[in-house]
Amino acid sequence: MIFKIKRKKTRQVEFNKLKIGNNNPIAIESMTNTPTKDSRKTLNQIKRLARAGCDLVRVAVPDSESAKELSRIIEKSPIPVVADIHFDYRLALLSIDAGVNGLRINPGNIGTRKEVEKILLKAEPLRLPVRIGVNLGSLQKDFSHLDDKAIAMLESAKQHIKILEDFKYKHILVSMKSSDVATTIRANRLFSREYNYPLHIGVTEAGPLLEGTVSSSLGIGILLSEGIGDTIRVSLTDDPVREIEVGYEILGNLGLREKRIKIISCPTCGRTQVPVIRIASFLRKSLNKLEKKPEISVAVMGCAVNGPGEARHADLGIAGSSKGWVFFKKGKVMKHLSRDIKDSELIEFILNEIREFKC
Amino acid sequence: MIFKIKRKKTRQVEFNKLKIGNNNPIAIESMTNTPTKDSRKTLNQIKRLARAGCDLVRVAVPDSESAKELSRIIEKSPIPVVADIHFDYRLALLSIDAGVNGLRINPGNIGTRKEVEKILLKAEPLRLPVRIGVNLGSLQKDFSHLDDKAIAMLESAKQHIKILEDFKYKHILVSMKSSDVATTIRANRLFSREYNYPLHIGVTEAGPLLEGTVSSSLGIGILLSEGIGDTIRVSLTDDPVREIEVGYEILGNLGLREKRIKIISCPTCGRTQVPVIRIASFLRKSLNKLEKKPEISVAVMGCAVNGPGEARHADLGIAGSSKGWVFFKKGKVMKHLSRDIKDSELIEFILNEIREFKC
Repeated sequence: MIFKIKRKKTRQVEFNKLKIGNNNPIAIESMTNTPTKDSRKTLNQIKRLARAGCDLVRVAVPDSESAKELSRIIEKSPIPVVADIHFDYRLALLSIDAGVNGLRINPGNIGTRKEVEKILLKAEPLRLPVRIGVNLGSLQKDFSHLDDKAIAMLESAKQHIKILEDFKYKHILVSMKSSDVATTIRANRLFSREYNYPLHIGVTEAGPLLEGTVSSSLGIGILLSEGIGDTIRVSLTDDPVREIEVGYEILGNLGLREKRIKIISCPTCGRTQVPVIRIASFLRKSLNKLEKKPEISVAVMGCAVNGPGEARHADLGIAGSSKGWVFFKKGKVMKHLSRDIKDSELIEFILNEIREFKC
Repeated sequence: MIFKIKRKKTRQVEFNKLKIGNNNPIAIESMTNTPTKDSRKTLNQIKRLARAGCDLVRVAVPDSESAKELSRIIEKSPIPVVADIHFDYRLALLSIDAGVNGLRINPGNIGTRKEVEKILLKAEPLRLPVRIGVNLGSLQKDFSHLDDKAIAMLESAKQHIKILEDFKYKHILVSMKSSDVATTIRANRLFSREYNYPLHIGVTEAGPLLEGTVSSSLGIGILLSEGIGDTIRVSLTDDPVREIEVGYEILGNLGLREKRIKIISCPTCGRTQVPVIRIASFLRKSLNKLEKKPEISVAVMGCAVNGPGEARHADLGIAGSSKGWVFFKKGKVMKHLSRDIKDSELIEFILNEIREFKC
């Protein structure tokens, strides 16, 4: 056991058949960015997300038109659907009628206590999980005067939890997100000491692909390494499918979810004699050609120093030098390939070798 | 103090004027991937790295031709240069003669004890830092039988430290890198309990851009969050300049180095009425037009829920809705812009506003 994360035990909630909390596998979520009232487009995106491995999808329900299309979406969605609702409690009621598998309500703007009660009365018989989603960007005025923004988010979450607890509602998840990694980490650490409701973690408005990947990896990764977090969302200003890919990378690297095909490739240096960057990124793109993806590692290396070693440790590996490519399988040299081999031939060769592994 | 990392105190080493360890700012390193014997190309890449904010650059010295070109590179390099040497101790001697600012030696393959001594006798009067660089991919045979790969790397590092300590050499840094995040984290945690030599941290052979960014952010980020690490290298199979960018993102997000311009942008959802993805990535690319980059945050938001809040918290922000763009500066609404504004005009407007901030 090289590195074992001891997860904090939390209560379990259920989004249809998906169990979250209480040591269930950490779920990976995303949110559609198509207009929800366009159920065809939204459903297509949900299917793409599901194929990428998304466990739970959230859709915005900003108006009654969207709420009306929800049942069509839910009926055909391969994964549970959560309705994201702001400002208008009636949209929550319509969403429950449409058969939604969970609600995300922002405590800062959903309405009066009476209106919250109406939602809960409808949700309770279905044991629908309700996620209290506190975002620093839309914090209630009551807390925005607090200088410590982590405390401000925590206090806001507490206030809403209190309302749900007053109504004896127990199917609760909580999230506290800021665009600042440190604030996000601190709010979740503080919450985790006081409560055992499952936590949905993520850094919000994380930015474009590269920035968002760094801040999500840091915020989510550091919390997970401390055992905090039951479901995650990587937030990227990009195709939501990328969020799922990054999510799997995070969990896979921390040993919290199965890994997918992992490409190990060297950063290249003055010793490199073969086009490692080109081959590695060509391989990454070509993996989509595979119908099934075994959980293996493939090394693409370009020098005589670390190349053979890494290529040997990986399930499959190629190490290139001035003399050509050496192909390794489970640590053994299997074949020598010419340095002049076409990129496409080299990639096809590797793909065929991957296909021989069982999934 | 929202989130303060308490750094473990380590000894100080000096690469020319760059101080590492002992609470000095965490350095950001990279390695050139041009042939070192082509000093013109290598120097050009070093200058690009330095402009991106690289503190320390490593060049491979695989042969005497490369060693001969070193003095030309070092003379004109705006940042300290480290020679990366394997297999042949004589290359280390040539590199010291060429004026190198530090050495990276792999304990698995540099040579006999006598040969190491020759290097140290030359390095000692110059107080040249020597980094012991243990990579799982090139581990000495003596340790490769150990099942626990973190322990294997630690034991290998210890053996080499012992040699340097026998010669009373003190200008030591250590790195232990694996392509596995968990193994990397564990080896460094164990080392940090036993030694106070400064640690260079990174995940090796991290893979293509996205995979490498995730695993580097996790490995480096989790260690830094525990106070471990004095200098970092993000390892990407891509342009080394990207390594520096990701390095700054990691340190900036953890409050360990100044931030650069931070773009906060929402992931878009079914509420989005403006082209947030397009504008955010256009803005990211356009930042290169700025001669000076103030340390500010710029929010690009696309909805009425979190948009105005985030746009207000940022130094500058635009929040778009069906009615057009609202421009915020330090939390105040400054201007309304038409929804039909051209992308290029909107970006120019933002760039001009950024230019008004002091660096």
